[in-house]
Amino acid sequence: MEKKVIHAALLGFGTVGTGVYKVLKNQEEEMEAKLGSVVRIKKIMVRNLEKAAVKVEDPSVLTNNWEEIVNDPDIDIIIELMGGMEPARTYILAALEAGKHVVSANKDLIAVYGKELLDMAETHHVDFLFEAAVAGGIPIIRPLKQCLAGNHMKEVMGIVNGTTNFILTKMTQDKMEFKEALALATELGYAEADPTADIEGLDAGRKVAILASVAFNSRVVFDDVYIEGITKISAKDISYAKEMGCDIKLLGVARNTEEGIEAYVCPMLIPSTHPLASVNDSYNAVFVNGDAVENAMFFGRGAGELPTASAVVGDIFDIARNMKANCCARIGCTCYKTIPVKKMADTRNCYFLRLQVEDRCGVLAEMTAVFAKYHVSVAQIIQKQAKPNESAEIVVITGKVREGDFRTAMEELSGRSFVHKISSMLRVYGE
Amino acid sequence: MEKKVIHAALLGFGTVGTGVYKVLKNQEEEMEAKLGSVVRIKKIMVRNLEKAAVKVEDPSVLTNNWEEIVNDPDIDIIIELMGGMEPARTYILAALEAGKHVVSANKDLIAVYGKELLDMAETHHVDFLFEAAVAGGIPIIRPLKQCLAGNHMKEVMGIVNGTTNFILTKMTQDKMEFKEALALATELGYAEADPTADIEGLDAGRKVAILASVAFNSRVVFDDVYIEGITKISAKDISYAKEMGCDIKLLGVARNTEEGIEAYVCPMLIPSTHPLASVNDSYNAVFVNGDAVENAMFFGRGAGELPTASAVVGDIFDIARNMKANCCARIGCTCYKTIPVKKMADTRNCYFLRLQVEDRCGVLAEMTAVFAKYHVSVAQIIQKQAKPNESAEIVVITGKVREGDFRTAMEELSGRSFVHKISSMLRVYGE
Repeated sequence: MEKKVIHAALLGFGTVGTGVYKVLKNQEEEMEAKLGSVVRIKKIMVRNLEKAAVKVEDPSVLTNNWEEIVNDPDIDIIIELMGGMEPARTYILAALEAGKHVVSANKDLIAVYGKELLDMAETHHVDFLFEAAVAGGIPIIRPLKQCLAGNHMKEVMGIVNGTTNFILTKMTQDKMEFKEALALATELGYAEADPTADIEGLDAGRKVAILASVAFNSRVVFDDVYIEGITKISAKDISYAKEMGCDIKLLGVARNTEEGIEAYVCPMLIPSTHPLASVNDSYNAVFVNGDAVENAMFFGRGAGELPTASAVVGDIFDIARNMKANCCARIGCTCYKTIPVKKMADTRNCYFLRLQVEDRCGVLAEMTAVFAKYHVSVAQIIQKQAKPNESAEIVVITGKVREGDFRTAMEELSGRSFVHKISSMLRVYGE
Repeated sequence: MEKKVIHAALLGFGTVGTGVYKVLKNQEEEMEAKLGSVVRIKKIMVRNLEKAAVKVEDPSVLTNNWEEIVNDPDIDIIIELMGGMEPARTYILAALEAGKHVVSANKDLIAVYGKELLDMAETHHVDFLFEAAVAGGIPIIRPLKQCLAGNHMKEVMGIVNGTTNFILTKMTQDKMEFKEALALATELGYAEADPTADIEGLDAGRKVAILASVAFNSRVVFDDVYIEGITKISAKDISYAKEMGCDIKLLGVARNTEEGIEAYVCPMLIPSTHPLASVNDSYNAVFVNGDAVENAMFFGRGAGELPTASAVVGDIFDIARNMKANCCARIGCTCYKTIPVKKMADTRNCYFLRLQVEDRCGVLAEMTAVFAKYHVSVAQIIQKQAKPNESAEIVVITGKVREGDFRTAMEELSGRSFVHKISSMLRVYGE
């Protein structure tokens, strides 16, 4: 069933919603040639009609009444850009049930209810697309589901939060401390008034859940992802890391190992020669490794009005093409396996450890004896001349060790009298 | 019309063909769940049956008879990996005419006959896909046609030839001269016995033609692309470039400007801070700029058995999904515009110039007087102490100037007695 004009409705008219409105306007002249149809925004659901009126050509498209949208048989595509759990979830499910296609950028929702939403889409034979939910404008969901479908993906990881990457870049390049860099990020609009979801790694964790699910064909939800933020990182850690040939980045990592899926977000040391190490400011990048493609990386703007709208409109156009070819729901949920997710304690990593110890002969021997007891080997160590009457600072990068063992070693170490303080414990990214 | 087993035929069983055979084997168990069907290689066309027999489980799949393939109604997908113009073109056209879908990695052919092949596919309502023709395993064609379809792309450029990138990397990191680096590339299997297509930029030029066509929705063919190779680059150029904050890369550049499309391949200086500058060895990367997505980059293996096979199999799986959803030819040729391609002389660039001049007072004034006559300004200049009785070496980076004007200035300059030699003339990448 061919349709010359396809009507869509926007739910939410904030930064991304406005972007989608603009990008569709910019594409208006070419849509017919590109898609064989024209996509028009028929309704925009907003909270404040007056405030939104200045942003549209024709204010009659604005509504605050969901029923007007879901019950309009003319509307084929719902673009959900409200964010959050409710009412987004209820609206999306109702839209899918009503036979409407849905495009969403809502990572919070998809990381938890992805299966429910995709199942509902399948039942009603409609599309539910979410390219914009991970890494903003960067194409990654569709490349994983289609271009790289011939791979068994071993790993998908990267920098998937622009706010924290901006903060860590400032801490690295301008030697700022965390608080100062956060204040700058807030001032420049990179950090929200409440930055918790970004700086505590929650936002990145949601993206890791979605990426892992798509890459490994097995559902990983937000609760499966181990999460640490960047609030405890100091400029000193970054400077020691540099000395050891590494940068510190907030990495989201998902690995498909023989014992199950590893999925975590934490600040990590990464060799300065790794392509991700030079991804700076608010840029995002996703690195993948598959048995056929080997290494590949996708880099770009992970947020922002137009870059995120680029991904949303890509999804909208895909649906328009599906409608023209009468093949909606052509690719739905791709989680056809059930792979267990490993506990963080069972992952194996190298660790960066910075600690203050008593400055006397024999301390190093006692410390490394505790290490040895739990199979922790030393790969690199730095100790600098301590000032009189001060603790000595020791920085260690360990060999690969089971996280559970390392934690036990740290507990035992922190109980020893020669250890004044364990200042930092960070993981080191490695294969 | 659903089909549980989809039969495919391989034309050519060299590096990539073998890779595709292996990747399909690796995916065999999962295909049913992933695609709703199973893709099987029914025939492999080879020149030497005996030589190929050791590479397959069942030698009865091998044939040297094209008729056996094109006339087999069981075979739905033809995978053309022979390369070159003929008989590849004849075979592909015949396959499309026979209603078979075609996947091809043949950049030589597509860069010249892309329109003919896509038109034939459209006429017969079948798929003609070619993700592997550009940048090997890196997803770029599908992301441009789908994920980024909401953009007016302004630029698509990058490192699209692994052989030359390997050579330039060795010249940069190990200070090798071109010949030495080429010999190493040949020894390691990165360069072919006849390396002309790589080192003269022809291979990259074909990829630029294809990328420009897809990115700007307007057909650009191989003949439209201005091409220079890397054979004249010296270690000295690279070392001066470094001093000026740049690396030298063989870049393929396509730009959509108000006056038309620019499309060229040449060695260029690029700021060392640009993400492409750190793409080394045989890696490829494609950088895109669009009005919505802003900057994005796609990085990975541009060649090799399994990485290229990854892209080919992605296309095969897409066709399998299209067959299941009964929507083949869902996205065909996207060149719905006709934008003229600019002459190289009409592009505007900054230039890196290394020349030997007479070592006497007034030479710089005479040189810059010639520059000024043709609107060539100086942005950076290096002149080092010359040895007695030797020419002085001057290295200049110019401001932006029309290429035609710059060439005229160079002609005039080379006629002046104080100019002993113009050793290098390279373009500088900039926006």
